[in-house]
Amino acid sequence: MNKEEALNFLKEQLKTMNYLGSTLSIVSWDMEVMAPSQAIDYRSEVMGYLSTQYHQLATDSRIGEALEALSSEISLTQHETKLVENFKDSYEKNKKIPESLQRELTIATSKGSQYWKKAKEKQNYEIFKPYLKQVIDLAIKQAECVGYEGHIYNAFLDDFEKGMTVEELDRIFPPLRDGLVALLDKIMKAKQDEPHHPEGEFDKDRQEQLSLMLLDAMGYDYKESGRVDETEHPFTTSLGPKDVRITTHYYEESIESAIFSSVHEGGHAIYDQNMPHQLAEYGIDEAPSMGIHESQSRFYENIIGRSLSFWRAFYPKLQKIFPEYQEISLEDFYRIVNKVTPSLVRTEADEVTYSLHVIIRYEIEKLMVSGAVSVDELPALWNQKYEEYLGITPPNDSEGLMQDVHWSEALIGYFPSYALGNLYGAQFYHQMKKDIPNVTEQIEAGDLTEIFNWLKTNVHEQGNLYTPAELVERVTGEPLNPQYFLDYLNEKYSRIYHF
Amino acid sequence: MNKEEALNFLKEQLKTMNYLGSTLSIVSWDMEVMAPSQAIDYRSEVMGYLSTQYHQLATDSRIGEALEALSSEISLTQHETKLVENFKDSYEKNKKIPESLQRELTIATSKGSQYWKKAKEKQNYEIFKPYLKQVIDLAIKQAECVGYEGHIYNAFLDDFEKGMTVEELDRIFPPLRDGLVALLDKIMKAKQDEPHHPEGEFDKDRQEQLSLMLLDAMGYDYKESGRVDETEHPFTTSLGPKDVRITTHYYEESIESAIFSSVHEGGHAIYDQNMPHQLAEYGIDEAPSMGIHESQSRFYENIIGRSLSFWRAFYPKLQKIFPEYQEISLEDFYRIVNKVTPSLVRTEADEVTYSLHVIIRYEIEKLMVSGAVSVDELPALWNQKYEEYLGITPPNDSEGLMQDVHWSEALIGYFPSYALGNLYGAQFYHQMKKDIPNVTEQIEAGDLTEIFNWLKTNVHEQGNLYTPAELVERVTGEPLNPQYFLDYLNEKYSRIYHF
Repeated sequence: MNKEEALNFLKEQLKTMNYLGSTLSIVSWDMEVMAPSQAIDYRSEVMGYLSTQYHQLATDSRIGEALEALSSEISLTQHETKLVENFKDSYEKNKKIPESLQRELTIATSKGSQYWKKAKEKQNYEIFKPYLKQVIDLAIKQAECVGYEGHIYNAFLDDFEKGMTVEELDRIFPPLRDGLVALLDKIMKAKQDEPHHPEGEFDKDRQEQLSLMLLDAMGYDYKESGRVDETEHPFTTSLGPKDVRITTHYYEESIESAIFSSVHEGGHAIYDQNMPHQLAEYGIDEAPSMGIHESQSRFYENIIGRSLSFWRAFYPKLQKIFPEYQEISLEDFYRIVNKVTPSLVRTEADEVTYSLHVIIRYEIEKLMVSGAVSVDELPALWNQKYEEYLGITPPNDSEGLMQDVHWSEALIGYFPSYALGNLYGAQFYHQMKKDIPNVTEQIEAGDLTEIFNWLKTNVHEQGNLYTPAELVERVTGEPLNPQYFLDYLNEKYSRIYHF
Repeated sequence: MNKEEALNFLKEQLKTMNYLGSTLSIVSWDMEVMAPSQAIDYRSEVMGYLSTQYHQLATDSRIGEALEALSSEISLTQHETKLVENFKDSYEKNKKIPESLQRELTIATSKGSQYWKKAKEKQNYEIFKPYLKQVIDLAIKQAECVGYEGHIYNAFLDDFEKGMTVEELDRIFPPLRDGLVALLDKIMKAKQDEPHHPEGEFDKDRQEQLSLMLLDAMGYDYKESGRVDETEHPFTTSLGPKDVRITTHYYEESIESAIFSSVHEGGHAIYDQNMPHQLAEYGIDEAPSMGIHESQSRFYENIIGRSLSFWRAFYPKLQKIFPEYQEISLEDFYRIVNKVTPSLVRTEADEVTYSLHVIIRYEIEKLMVSGAVSVDELPALWNQKYEEYLGITPPNDSEGLMQDVHWSEALIGYFPSYALGNLYGAQFYHQMKKDIPNVTEQIEAGDLTEIFNWLKTNVHEQGNLYTPAELVERVTGEPLNPQYFLDYLNEKYSRIYHF
């Protein structure tokens, strides 16, 4: 292959992979949102078939030939270089993992998920333990095959947060942890009686009306190039460049979950809708990492969606839809949606404690993959850290180390992205306030257009042209710094809790 | 390949084709029912890719090798024989059509559909004419390549109604046509003032409630292995063996369309839900023909759904949902939904005139593909036949020969299936009444279970083990006979119109 042939081959392969990727997204979305219960068995077979086809495309040996042909090519454009890098990364990683190991891991995670579910239901870690051990052992083997520099955990991080390392996280997480623990301590000491949501039945239709109003304000086009549906666990998925769908959840007894699920997923959706789709042929129309994607959802959910300014604009509209809230003042509503309480479950945690849940997992995972802690020791270690950082101990392992699905599926190294999202978001916001000096006034007026445009220009339209670290530095002029997030939280919560 | 290898290969190939077929159904259903408007462009590319993949599987040269290996095999079971036959049929047909012709036809039908739409909008046949000519010419070429015995139209019929021939249709359709024209004449002479639907706004929710009630009674499982949604043009599709979905249409100004669309599609859906899925590996879980499939939908829509017995059971329930109908007696409602009027458009035709619309198309298509009538002569021929059989002349070609999409897509030979469905249904019903002597009483009691079971055993669970002709003979003990349909209509309408 000459240069042109090699580039054309990669582009064509990517195009085909994207067709299959889109197909898989459509088929999964339908499975999650629309399919009748009995469809599951056959649908799983169909998805298995499509996944295998995708894997075959991704490991096609002609990719290796094309990469070889381009390996000493120095006259590539920035976009072409990115195309080559993206393929190189996944292709070479794939090639290093023996098929037998891949197969073993597939079986182990399939069993792992199954027994995790069972063990969690029965609150019995012993049921899950042997399968977890197997998953961890195989994941370590895989990391050894792929190779890494420094800590073995770097091999895991690389799958979700390109370029991120233990060395870097060990610079960022300890001050974050200490800052959060200190803040939490202040909050707990200052805590007095707190206001509550009104009781009532908040029907789905009105919750949907509210969600759509907020999503409209954010600039998510759910009418012509998206959809909003309902599922038990909310998510965002791209079925095509102009088909980005979210789901949310309406609980009749409370409107809070629908609001913040919608706004969170809306943040993800805006990102996907504003990717540089014109660069799709180079594979640049994707986020550089999980953490950067999460930064957008958590930015809208928390920094915007839980701010007083935001509710100055939207609370009167909420009260119109829900007259039940006439009796609750704006300030009380603001305090309700920003209530801080140490809790056992990550997915239900507030803005202050959330990252502590993540850091606990990070600290445990590091020990786990370096062999310093055995599966037997995990529950005690988990509980000890919850006591230390959050002051609470799980009554059982189902609300403890078995609460998340991740480990059963060998998703080790994924958790840090959640906390990094908070940090990226706060650092972006710090810069945004410099670039848009009256941003608070704009939010108070219910006008999120400039915020949308700022994110679009600085983050969304950059796709994966830069690594997370490069992007943060380009946008904010300095490396990732957890202090911005801590400052934001301290300022916000010292006002709420008066300390 | 030895026998076993060849059979296994065919089974594996079929399995893969079914995965891709299911995928295409999911992706199309989503496109029709769920996708946002801007998704179309990319989705079309995805569907193009999947179709090409499917075509490659269907024309894989190893199918030829397997068929070759099995060609002199005499010790095949009935199911294995069917597997081989199904592959042989489509594979050899495909092989006989040169790729260049296939490509020309794809382009011609794509343009044909486009210009048909434009021409229909502008009521100007001249816009469509040259493209129609091209489609017809290429379709004739294709028929010549594939080959046929007797009339060239037999090649077209074979695609939709396996084993059906011009010779057979020329035995069946003329007496049907004459009988219908005579019946229509009697009805028109007996016609007096007829009752009307009440005016009002019939909201979607109540129409859905009614539709689901009727579908429940029919035995269509839309809860656990199906769905009911809304689209402009109602349809049924199988996304998997336990995922058979229908769509219907709710017009706020009238409940009639929703009722009969739902019941019609429900008939299709019950069929697909009760196929012999355990024989899927042999490809036996399909209808033997379009006409047999249509027999089930039209049986439920007309023979059951427009019967007085049916509404004796369900009209009181309808009146509960729609108190607007309190003022309309059961007998008047029955007359309203069975009103006979010659009309221009096939899809809006009543039970008596419907088959005449089809016969007109059949007579024209025969002339069309044998070169006996040119595209220039089509409008005059069309209008002349409408005047002759139905006593009306279209005011323009959009309500005349351009009303259907079929010809623009080279779907020639498809129309007869619609009328055959009526005939099959009536002949099945004649037998069913012998087998279930009190079937009318059961319908009047709102109990359709025995009907469901009779169709399941005699038709649905037979899959495509038999050709349409064989199935009719097996179930009713004699070949297809249009007299049953004519008798049914004459008995029904002589009572309604008192002659």
